[in-house]
Amino acid sequence: MALDTGRFLADLDAARRIGSYRTGVHRPTFSPDDMESRRWLAARMEQAGLEATIDGIGNVFGRHGGAGPHLLAGSHLETQNHAGWLDGVLGVIGALELARAGLPVDVCAYCDEEAHWGDFIGSRSLIGEFSEADMDAARNRETGKPLRLALEEVGIAGRERLVIDPGRYKGALEMHIEQGTQLENAGLRIGVVTGIVAIRQFRIMITGQQDHTGGTTMRERRDAGLTAVRLLGMIDQEFPRICADRSVWTTGRIALEPNAPMIIPGQAELVFSFRDLEVEVMDRMADCLRRIVAESNRRERCPAVLEEIGRSDAAICDPDIVRAFSEAAETQCPGAWQRMPSGAIHDSQILARKLPIGMLFVPSIGGISHHWSEDTKREDLVLGMEVLAEAARRLLGA
Amino acid sequence: MALDTGRFLADLDAARRIGSYRTGVHRPTFSPDDMESRRWLAARMEQAGLEATIDGIGNVFGRHGGAGPHLLAGSHLETQNHAGWLDGVLGVIGALELARAGLPVDVCAYCDEEAHWGDFIGSRSLIGEFSEADMDAARNRETGKPLRLALEEVGIAGRERLVIDPGRYKGALEMHIEQGTQLENAGLRIGVVTGIVAIRQFRIMITGQQDHTGGTTMRERRDAGLTAVRLLGMIDQEFPRICADRSVWTTGRIALEPNAPMIIPGQAELVFSFRDLEVEVMDRMADCLRRIVAESNRRERCPAVLEEIGRSDAAICDPDIVRAFSEAAETQCPGAWQRMPSGAIHDSQILARKLPIGMLFVPSIGGISHHWSEDTKREDLVLGMEVLAEAARRLLGA
Repeated sequence: MALDTGRFLADLDAARRIGSYRTGVHRPTFSPDDMESRRWLAARMEQAGLEATIDGIGNVFGRHGGAGPHLLAGSHLETQNHAGWLDGVLGVIGALELARAGLPVDVCAYCDEEAHWGDFIGSRSLIGEFSEADMDAARNRETGKPLRLALEEVGIAGRERLVIDPGRYKGALEMHIEQGTQLENAGLRIGVVTGIVAIRQFRIMITGQQDHTGGTTMRERRDAGLTAVRLLGMIDQEFPRICADRSVWTTGRIALEPNAPMIIPGQAELVFSFRDLEVEVMDRMADCLRRIVAESNRRERCPAVLEEIGRSDAAICDPDIVRAFSEAAETQCPGAWQRMPSGAIHDSQILARKLPIGMLFVPSIGGISHHWSEDTKREDLVLGMEVLAEAARRLLGA
Repeated sequence: MALDTGRFLADLDAARRIGSYRTGVHRPTFSPDDMESRRWLAARMEQAGLEATIDGIGNVFGRHGGAGPHLLAGSHLETQNHAGWLDGVLGVIGALELARAGLPVDVCAYCDEEAHWGDFIGSRSLIGEFSEADMDAARNRETGKPLRLALEEVGIAGRERLVIDPGRYKGALEMHIEQGTQLENAGLRIGVVTGIVAIRQFRIMITGQQDHTGGTTMRERRDAGLTAVRLLGMIDQEFPRICADRSVWTTGRIALEPNAPMIIPGQAELVFSFRDLEVEVMDRMADCLRRIVAESNRRERCPAVLEEIGRSDAAICDPDIVRAFSEAAETQCPGAWQRMPSGAIHDSQILARKLPIGMLFVPSIGGISHHWSEDTKREDLVLGMEVLAEAARRLLGA
């Protein structure tokens, strides 16, 4: 009953062979390969002495039979299309290895973190916040197929959906790849996550007048694209003044109509989002954005309409878990780790509604994520496993 | 042998019935309706006493049999898809009416000004600047069908292509709709064109690094979209300082890759163009653009590459013709006309390589162009015809 990082790596390699695509994997939720990976995991859990269940929404849960206090640990099995071999699976196999190392850990692969069928349907179900009506409404994002139908096709419709008892756990741990280059650029090997950032996403619709570029003087024009450029220029000027050190903001989408070389754009759609850990900073950025849109509407002939289209709250990691991870990291790799927020979303932010949470990052080579070429050095995988186990032992007093 | 504006309007209405679409027309070059309109025009020319030919590239030419000096007058018959009833035809029927009014005018419908098969293939052929090799290479822009094949299908392949003798003419006249709102906004009824503006068109390719919006700090990012916004902001700042009064500049196209809400753009393609009548101003704008791209490349982490992708020279209208149009306009509608450049392109700019040219604009209601709802008030059409005839008489000393 000792930690065996060779076994841990061997299981990562075994999972990689299920639905392999080039050097990555392709396992969209409820695809045949995805279901094979769930059955494979359930069997591995049983071998580890856990009581394994694939529940009525696809969560794979391995319950530790012994005495507590317990930890919950895990991540997800399914992948984005043609994506990497470690995104999600790393945290699942890491959790399984904790159990195999004799620690009182329940292991869970939360279903569909990659959002083929909705937002965090597995982890929301596991904390009792995904209703039957939510089940009825859920559809595949690409095909529109009802979730209920998919569950029938894979043979798990009608099964009980497990719901955790928060009182059973000291907390929930998740190991994950960084999906960025902050560790790599800083020459570090472990990231101790301080929290998962909040996200707010806005659409800005700007309406002008489509016209010929030749026949319309500059004074006559109502160029929606030009108004968009000026508005985005104001954001570029103002946001650095009001943001915090780790804030990020992005215009991912600029869509002009008709987007033709010789036609003045009659419409511009912008999708703009920002992220930070602090509510106060998020509010400051939202206020700044509203001021900028109002200012644009005072100055410009093309009206801009601001609409919030997405919002998720920050999840702050538990101080005791952050301390345990930090001490474990300092023991295993002195000086080669840092505390950092998670800019990406994870199931842990859902679990945080019921449990103390903590997350651990290992570096992503070149920051590549959601692509089959995603990878992490094997020595960093091993180090992540060792830090995870050391922290779990500290938290459990084991 | 007098000007008959009722006959002129009746022929515009007759042409409108060939390939009618809602209140406009749909006559792409060499479509059955387009060919019917060419045969109809040739018959009308013969009735007017002209010697009519549909030549080997589709130009419809009506030659005046009497003594000179002559004028050449005309425009085009074919239309953009589902476009307006006056764009082109106005200048053709106007020219025909000049001949019917007894003036020594050759009338021409230059083929394919609307560029279904190439750039000004009809007028270039008519001045001897469209070779057999050009004929071989020309293809339909939408379908890729060879021009030679289309000419065979419509039964004019192998016919002689007419080439004008510049010595025969005092100049070439073209009446056209404005395709803008400058006349309408100024409450004017006639535009005397001073020249057709030059156009220069550039592609700016900006290369960054596609990344997750969550996992990449602002300092780490190479956001091609943000570099594009800053570069376009510099243009917006600098161009008003170096342009002339009538200069226009436009970013018609902004294409981000992947243009997804939550992904940092890895690439941005911009298509930027500007227009003016003066070579010096055009050069100043080109220099300014090059300076801005160089400045962007000094400041930014995403390199921008500037490539000129289109260029047409300005065609200055002949001072004598401008004077004749101006005097005619002042006679027919005192104070209700102006001199102005043409921001749009026309066959006259090709003819200008061999002949003195002049153009006359009538207002476009609401500036609508290249759309079936394009229209001009009937009294403005009549006034345009009267000014055109009066100017032709002055030029011919008739």
